[in-house]
Amino acid sequence: MDFQPNLEQTLRDLQAGHLSVEDALEQINGVKELGYAAIDTDRQRRNGFPEVIFGEGKTVEQMEGIMQFLLQKELPILATRVSLQKGEALSQLFPNGHYYPEARCFVLNSKKEEVDAEHYIAVVTAGTSDVPVAEEAAVTAETFGHAVHRIYDVGVAGIHRLFRRLDEIQKASVVIVIAGMEGALVSVVGGLVDVPVIAVPTSIGYGSNLQGLTTLMSMLTSCASGVTVVNIDNGFGAAYSACMINRLNHNRKENE
Amino acid sequence: MDFQPNLEQTLRDLQAGHLSVEDALEQINGVKELGYAAIDTDRQRRNGFPEVIFGEGKTVEQMEGIMQFLLQKELPILATRVSLQKGEALSQLFPNGHYYPEARCFVLNSKKEEVDAEHYIAVVTAGTSDVPVAEEAAVTAETFGHAVHRIYDVGVAGIHRLFRRLDEIQKASVVIVIAGMEGALVSVVGGLVDVPVIAVPTSIGYGSNLQGLTTLMSMLTSCASGVTVVNIDNGFGAAYSACMINRLNHNRKENE
Amino acid sequence: MDFQPNLEQTLRDLQAGHLSVEDALEQINGVKELGYAAIDTDRQRRNGFPEVIFGEGKTVEQMEGIMQFLLQKELPILATRVSLQKGEALSQLFPNGHYYPEARCFVLNSKKEEVDAEHYIAVVTAGTSDVPVAEEAAVTAETFGHAVHRIYDVGVAGIHRLFRRLDEIQKASVVIVIAGMEGALVSVVGGLVDVPVIAVPTSIGYGSNLQGLTTLMSMLTSCASGVTVVNIDNGFGAAYSACMINRLNHNRKENE
Amino acid sequence: MDFQPNLEQTLRDLQAGHLSVEDALEQINGVKELGYAAIDTDRQRRNGFPEVIFGEGKTVEQMEGIMQFLLQKELPILATRVSLQKGEALSQLFPNGHYYPEARCFVLNSKKEEVDAEHYIAVVTAGTSDVPVAEEAAVTAETFGHAVHRIYDVGVAGIHRLFRRLDEIQKASVVIVIAGMEGALVSVVGGLVDVPVIAVPTSIGYGSNLQGLTTLMSMLTSCASGVTVVNIDNGFGAAYSACMINRLNHNRKENE
Amino acid sequence: MDFQPNLEQTLRDLQAGHLSVEDALEQINGVKELGYAAIDTDRQRRNGFPEVIFGEGKTVEQMEGIMQFLLQKELPILATRVSLQKGEALSQLFPNGHYYPEARCFVLNSKKEEVDAEHYIAVVTAGTSDVPVAEEAAVTAETFGHAVHRIYDVGVAGIHRLFRRLDEIQKASVVIVIAGMEGALVSVVGGLVDVPVIAVPTSIGYGSNLQGLTTLMSMLTSCASGVTVVNIDNGFGAAYSACMINRLNHNRKENE
Amino acid sequence: MDFQPNLEQTLRDLQAGHLSVEDALEQINGVKELGYAAIDTDRQRRNGFPEVIFGEGKTVEQMEGIMQFLLQKELPILATRVSLQKGEALSQLFPNGHYYPEARCFVLNSKKEEVDAEHYIAVVTAGTSDVPVAEEAAVTAETFGHAVHRIYDVGVAGIHRLFRRLDEIQKASVVIVIAGMEGALVSVVGGLVDVPVIAVPTSIGYGSNLQGLTTLMSMLTSCASGVTVVNIDNGFGAAYSACMINRLNHNRKENE
Amino acid sequence: MDFQPNLEQTLRDLQAGHLSVEDALEQINGVKELGYAAIDTDRQRRNGFPEVIFGEGKTVEQMEGIMQFLLQKELPILATRVSLQKGEALSQLFPNGHYYPEARCFVLNSKKEEVDAEHYIAVVTAGTSDVPVAEEAAVTAETFGHAVHRIYDVGVAGIHRLFRRLDEIQKASVVIVIAGMEGALVSVVGGLVDVPVIAVPTSIGYGSNLQGLTTLMSMLTSCASGVTVVNIDNGFGAAYSACMINRLNHNRKENE
Amino acid sequence: MDFQPNLEQTLRDLQAGHLSVEDALEQINGVKELGYAAIDTDRQRRNGFPEVIFGEGKTVEQMEGIMQFLLQKELPILATRVSLQKGEALSQLFPNGHYYPEARCFVLNSKKEEVDAEHYIAVVTAGTSDVPVAEEAAVTAETFGHAVHRIYDVGVAGIHRLFRRLDEIQKASVVIVIAGMEGALVSVVGGLVDVPVIAVPTSIGYGSNLQGLTTLMSMLTSCASGVTVVNIDNGFGAAYSACMINRLNHNRKENE
Repeated sequence: MDFQPNLEQTLRDLQAGHLSVEDALEQINGVKELGYAAIDTDRQRRNGFPEVIFGEGKTVEQMEGIMQFLLQKELPILATRVSLQKGEALSQLFPNGHYYPEARCFVLNSKKEEVDAEHYIAVVTAGTSDVPVAEEAAVTAETFGHAVHRIYDVGVAGIHRLFRRLDEIQKASVVIVIAGMEGALVSVVGGLVDVPVIAVPTSIGYGSNLQGLTTLMSMLTSCASGVTVVNIDNGFGAAYSACMINRLNHNRKENE
Repeated sequence: MDFQPNLEQTLRDLQAGHLSVEDALEQINGVKELGYAAIDTDRQRRNGFPEVIFGEGKTVEQMEGIMQFLLQKELPILATRVSLQKGEALSQLFPNGHYYPEARCFVLNSKKEEVDAEHYIAVVTAGTSDVPVAEEAAVTAETFGHAVHRIYDVGVAGIHRLFRRLDEIQKASVVIVIAGMEGALVSVVGGLVDVPVIAVPTSIGYGSNLQGLTTLMSMLTSCASGVTVVNIDNGFGAAYSACMINRLNHNRKENE
Repeated sequence: MDFQPNLEQTLRDLQAGHLSVEDALEQINGVKELGYAAIDTDRQRRNGFPEVIFGEGKTVEQMEGIMQFLLQKELPILATRVSLQKGEALSQLFPNGHYYPEARCFVLNSKKEEVDAEHYIAVVTAGTSDVPVAEEAAVTAETFGHAVHRIYDVGVAGIHRLFRRLDEIQKASVVIVIAGMEGALVSVVGGLVDVPVIAVPTSIGYGSNLQGLTTLMSMLTSCASGVTVVNIDNGFGAAYSACMINRLNHNRKENE
Repeated sequence: MDFQPNLEQTLRDLQAGHLSVEDALEQINGVKELGYAAIDTDRQRRNGFPEVIFGEGKTVEQMEGIMQFLLQKELPILATRVSLQKGEALSQLFPNGHYYPEARCFVLNSKKEEVDAEHYIAVVTAGTSDVPVAEEAAVTAETFGHAVHRIYDVGVAGIHRLFRRLDEIQKASVVIVIAGMEGALVSVVGGLVDVPVIAVPTSIGYGSNLQGLTTLMSMLTSCASGVTVVNIDNGFGAAYSACMINRLNHNRKENE
Repeated sequence: MDFQPNLEQTLRDLQAGHLSVEDALEQINGVKELGYAAIDTDRQRRNGFPEVIFGEGKTVEQMEGIMQFLLQKELPILATRVSLQKGEALSQLFPNGHYYPEARCFVLNSKKEEVDAEHYIAVVTAGTSDVPVAEEAAVTAETFGHAVHRIYDVGVAGIHRLFRRLDEIQKASVVIVIAGMEGALVSVVGGLVDVPVIAVPTSIGYGSNLQGLTTLMSMLTSCASGVTVVNIDNGFGAAYSACMINRLNHNRKENE
Repeated sequence: MDFQPNLEQTLRDLQAGHLSVEDALEQINGVKELGYAAIDTDRQRRNGFPEVIFGEGKTVEQMEGIMQFLLQKELPILATRVSLQKGEALSQLFPNGHYYPEARCFVLNSKKEEVDAEHYIAVVTAGTSDVPVAEEAAVTAETFGHAVHRIYDVGVAGIHRLFRRLDEIQKASVVIVIAGMEGALVSVVGGLVDVPVIAVPTSIGYGSNLQGLTTLMSMLTSCASGVTVVNIDNGFGAAYSACMINRLNHNRKENE
Repeated sequence: MDFQPNLEQTLRDLQAGHLSVEDALEQINGVKELGYAAIDTDRQRRNGFPEVIFGEGKTVEQMEGIMQFLLQKELPILATRVSLQKGEALSQLFPNGHYYPEARCFVLNSKKEEVDAEHYIAVVTAGTSDVPVAEEAAVTAETFGHAVHRIYDVGVAGIHRLFRRLDEIQKASVVIVIAGMEGALVSVVGGLVDVPVIAVPTSIGYGSNLQGLTTLMSMLTSCASGVTVVNIDNGFGAAYSACMINRLNHNRKENE
Repeated sequence: MDFQPNLEQTLRDLQAGHLSVEDALEQINGVKELGYAAIDTDRQRRNGFPEVIFGEGKTVEQMEGIMQFLLQKELPILATRVSLQKGEALSQLFPNGHYYPEARCFVLNSKKEEVDAEHYIAVVTAGTSDVPVAEEAAVTAETFGHAVHRIYDVGVAGIHRLFRRLDEIQKASVVIVIAGMEGALVSVVGGLVDVPVIAVPTSIGYGSNLQGLTTLMSMLTSCASGVTVVNIDNGFGAAYSACMINRLNHNRKENE
């Protein structure tokens, strides 16, 4: 395995004076130590996505520090699980950034304008209560430059609402289905499309819903094939995988 | 509460020589002691249904004894969870009886011929694996004189199969939906009918299905209203409640 | 399946100027889009009940909007899980409405006065702590025009309290039994009546009660037949099914 | 704490030649080492009951060895969870012993004849399936010299069967209630007696019964006071505690 | 079953003018309806203990009302799970009462002075965190006239602390062992005494303790015989059963 | 929604005598009724994959019947969960078919020869015990015409084994990681690739593994992004989704 | 067993006037009764570590009392789970003490200066969220005189960060690995070192993480040998065992 | 990290003709591919222990192949979870080997004779049912050259049996405690020794024991410090960690 693929280039850059010793060290190690965090600077090369900031439990100061570092890389910056209060503080520190209150995300350097509208991700919810999780997914995908179609509140209790928008779902590259309670929408959609379906259980429901655990288990045992599942309320994770899938279409275009 | 509603009549019958002391005692107590079982002889009056024999763990001899006693009452006799081997033994002992191998039920004095075809119970399954539980439900209902429509293998993975038979489901007095895995069919049907839906989870599936527990929990947290649930694989219980509901229509007729 | 059963009539109404294009569209789609909600306007036809508002997580403004729309339909309007604060706000916005604090329901256009007193639903609780769930059930049923008998605090720890009121329970069309802890009342009642019993587990108890999960499981494995179960604390769901059952008697009357 | 209360006496007996060195060692240590088992010879003094043999996983030879040793002590000998095959082998080895197939117990030196009939233990079951566990309890109690009244198949689905025998239950010193499924009988009995009730959940039921776990949890959260619980199917344990309680009455007699 | 054992006496008292019609009705029904509660007035006769007030979820006014009624009966009055604030309010309303803050109990007409010091209940805890549950047990037992020995903080991590007080434990009529975490103290004590042991799991511990569920399960599967278990943190329930057991000794005395 | 997209064509074919009425009916309904199964004949059009036969619980005769029908369609035929005994029987009935004993799959009309070797699916296992699940995945993918690289027994206990083959994993279109026990391999691989990772938990392990439930939960809460999960031991499901993803590359080629 | 190993010395000290009767009693009993706590004064002799104060649920006054007593013994004093507020109060009462806010520990008489730097404990975390638990472990070990190397934020999502510091981990006497989510780091480290690994699951993660339960189960079923596990978030317990292990090296030195 | 620490030496050996190319490749890769297994040949260097064969699910032929390879290394060879039948087959193939039926282990090249008797591991069980797990631990440790003291059947139900052998336990380098049911022995031993305690829960018990899960959870929440836990029935894992700990003493000796 090649942990330091550009070692020679880094050393040449150092010799040529294009890099400080600190920066060379960081490139070789693939880690930027900030004390409170060890940023994985090799991620974009390895995973095709830059480091994403999980905002829960981080102070505004810590997020600011990480963002300042990432800003130098000219990559899109995404912080998830950012409370309204922290989001407003970040908006003041980074006037170019944007805070999405429903998605609880803060974004800088979004690639939203570069989307390939033809190859889009469908984000589908069963109810209105699932929308915050859906928005986390949608904002994540848009930040990384993917087109998103939002198809909300089409749960099976009134299944004609789903059929009205089925064409739009069927033409997506990949479908994210977000539902709470028994999660039946996943199986219905899974039986009607020919692209991968990523299911996100939400913690909507009560009693036997068990904070989303029933929904999770239910989706995993779905009668429809072609469905994979992420953790409860994990809109970000679903979008991340969906982008990886949709990128195959992007790449195609670029290669042509 | 009146535990012995016909006490005077019983005593008069005894005095008149129409009853033995043993039978009088049994009527007053509402219990027939067979040693290995204490038959609740008051059930038909109290619950509107005679005692049903749960065959699991009972020997052929024990079932025979109970049936011999019940035969005197001229009520329909139903034994559930009867294995093939025991069913064949009972068929020899009671040539007028009938054993249903898929439903694992043995029936005597069925009221099947007396059904009111207009007011029927729809028994709907998601897959073929759910059919044994469905047959337990169907045979139970038919034994007690209720019409049944079987609508099998219409799960949501190919939802057009359900729509093809929706009219038949919508015209039932009550709908029993039987499904394993994520049980999504319950919510879809629940959103499309205006009569009570009784959901039966089956232990079909594996891994996160947890022997039907996921299906059970999923059905309880269904997004559709008008759904109530019985225990895993409990086709008999669902039919029993469905008959109670459907009987309201029967009664109506009789009263008119 | 006929998703648009009155399409021709709608088109004729439009042509005749009796409908605006917006209203025609809404009738054909069966959906009223409010942005924050997609109201299922086809429900009354399909399920026999209008859309009910689940108040938890909705703002007063959102509920007001939905109610304004529903008011045009002259159907009973029910919002459940409405907090005291929101209930009072709604009472000011809709002076003809009524807020039930114990049931946490807000009601407009109640059909309470139209009840058929002869065919009633018995709502039975084991203890006083179960009363809020019972009131949610009772108010729901009354709003949709069904008679309710409240029989509270008759749990099996002092079983003579149950027997004192047994006649009233036995004469109901359908019985809702609401209990926490071990839920034994369900089995006792189930053994004494000849109508369907709908059991509602409540999250009353502690330790091994597991927030109602033990009660739920216990009720599902009840030794009495004729019992079906709904989710923990789901008084609304039990009443909804009970109304569907009791309506069979109403219909009978109307047909005669 | 006095671990060796009769040390001096043991040493005197050794000196006087009444004891071998091996026996003296065993008395001082309170342990008889058999290689495959370390018999606790001090139990009768400490707990008031001799060592009981848990037959599951022990060979006939091992049980024989332990019994041979215990026979010298002139104490009642009880082996529980003994399969039919092993029970018959033991019957041949110990012609004075008795094997109870339903209880799956083998007994030697039973004190059954010494019972105080006035102070009895009531062993109550909900159904016939609970009888094996009940018999384990009954045989255990009888072996240690306690009177037992068996009151079987009086579950709440036909509650009049319970009331018919309530007097007998109320006059017991202590009541053991054995039930599967939802275990409702425990709460009903607990509300009707003024003596301790020991509840034994059985693994009877299916699906949501969870191999007796639901019954166990349900009994622990019983609405009746005065109820304590033992492990699933643990008839022996319930009887052991019941004997300790009933002995208080025995002692009383002896002291008078 | 005799639900109204003193019916004739009640009627004679009514005729003689010793009873009002209301009081006669209450005696015959065995229920005092207060609107917010249906007091079981037959409990002392049936169970040997008066109704106990579960304070959680009741207002001071409701508790006051119930206590006013019970005061007429000259029975000990116990309210459990009473918060400090409510306890102080009750102390002002009933100056003869006493509030125990650690036990969270309010007591009136205690029989504490009538105890039989010779026959006592040992209340044993593993740690100091278990003391509140232990005090609930101790105050309950004392209120009903039973002697209690408190033996606190003798858990097995320093087992010599237990041995120092073992004699006192061994001489009790019945032992209540209260422990959190793994609950090992129950098995150690169970192996050293010849009287019934009632185990109370507490919700002390974290992580794998699962809010007391691990302790509960652990105690149920104890290797020591003679142990029965009550619900998590249920000091009251343990004391209630312990009093029933200890009373056998009391009765003995009275009978002699 | 268009449930019958080729209705006109079907009718024209019927008129022209190219179709029997039975076949026309089947095309219009999208269902072939075999009695014991209702084959979804519309699946290839809707989902891009033909119906797959779940062999568990089906007889050889039933599988033969379904396969005979599918053979007419010239689509690849896959039966999963086929036991050795049934596999051999099918091999005799269909000499052109192939049975894979480790994968427990039977295949007819495989598209294995048509694979696009450049765009492959990597199937990675942690241990040798995971191989049967991996083979189910590999055979599924190959049957539908996708190239597969098998990289087995590279679990993290000897992590150098993984690094030796990392390049091969990184160049795949999509990676399926199959592991039991703690499933750590998923997170390690997820952190090293830039394509979607589908994780399959296996029921390998014991005790706290809980039949794969721990592995499932562990994979869902993986610290690596880009991971989605399918049900325990569900190699087929993982391959199905992987094929949908890999097909995007296929399509690309075809479009170019 | 020798519960009072120095009894003679204690008595001689008493006789010689070197001890008060109270202190002699305490030495003989091995318990110091403070009313609210029974300090185990024999622990250092028995376990090699003094009593540690679990701060949760103790008041500042109680902790002060225990510390005053322990100060006389000249042993290191450690209180864990001490909130910031209580920590500051203790800092004022004991100016020589030190409060560690992240570790939530208060320490007096630390042996930190006496460490043997050569034989150290490696404390390794997967993420920054695990640091508080890691600091509890590190402070505990340092207080008892052990050297600690902190290696934080080296989780497997960016596994090169681990390899950069692997030498340091491999040279430790014992390794504590602290991780949340799926806990994969434990297995990776376990496969790369030849010393004992103690795993601490943390409650970091959401949904299927189940408050650390998934991590706990996952670590227990790790594919790497040489791993043992402590309770969720139990940094103290891990350090305590690690010190016992590392001390074997200390002892070695001292013995040489 | 240095994955190939002896690369130069390997290459020199190859050049000198001391190694075949195959062996050189194997040394450089650290993996011996056998087709059905990828033996980690670098383990002894990395972990200090050779690869151990997990026998469950492996054929005799597979085990023979792996052993033939390992024999060349002159390291001790241990196969665990080997059934009696397979053990006898291996005994015939490797006459120098030894099969331990109770431990279900097969051993070759045991280092049993090289043990350092002074520094031993105490293997302690609560009951006789725990002995098979204990023997797996004991045989593992002896195979790797560690002395073992077996102290069996000393559970807390007769705690004097433990005290009789406490000295022997206290003098061990490390203690393995093996128990089923509630696992109380772990806490008692943990409170009495000053060396690390490794707890092994066994699946002994029934009902609430939950196949060892209760024991596992109970041990993790033990009130004694210095206890770490391994998976249910994992005697091998406990011994492996214990050997790592005990080796610190060995090393000491060797260094001296």
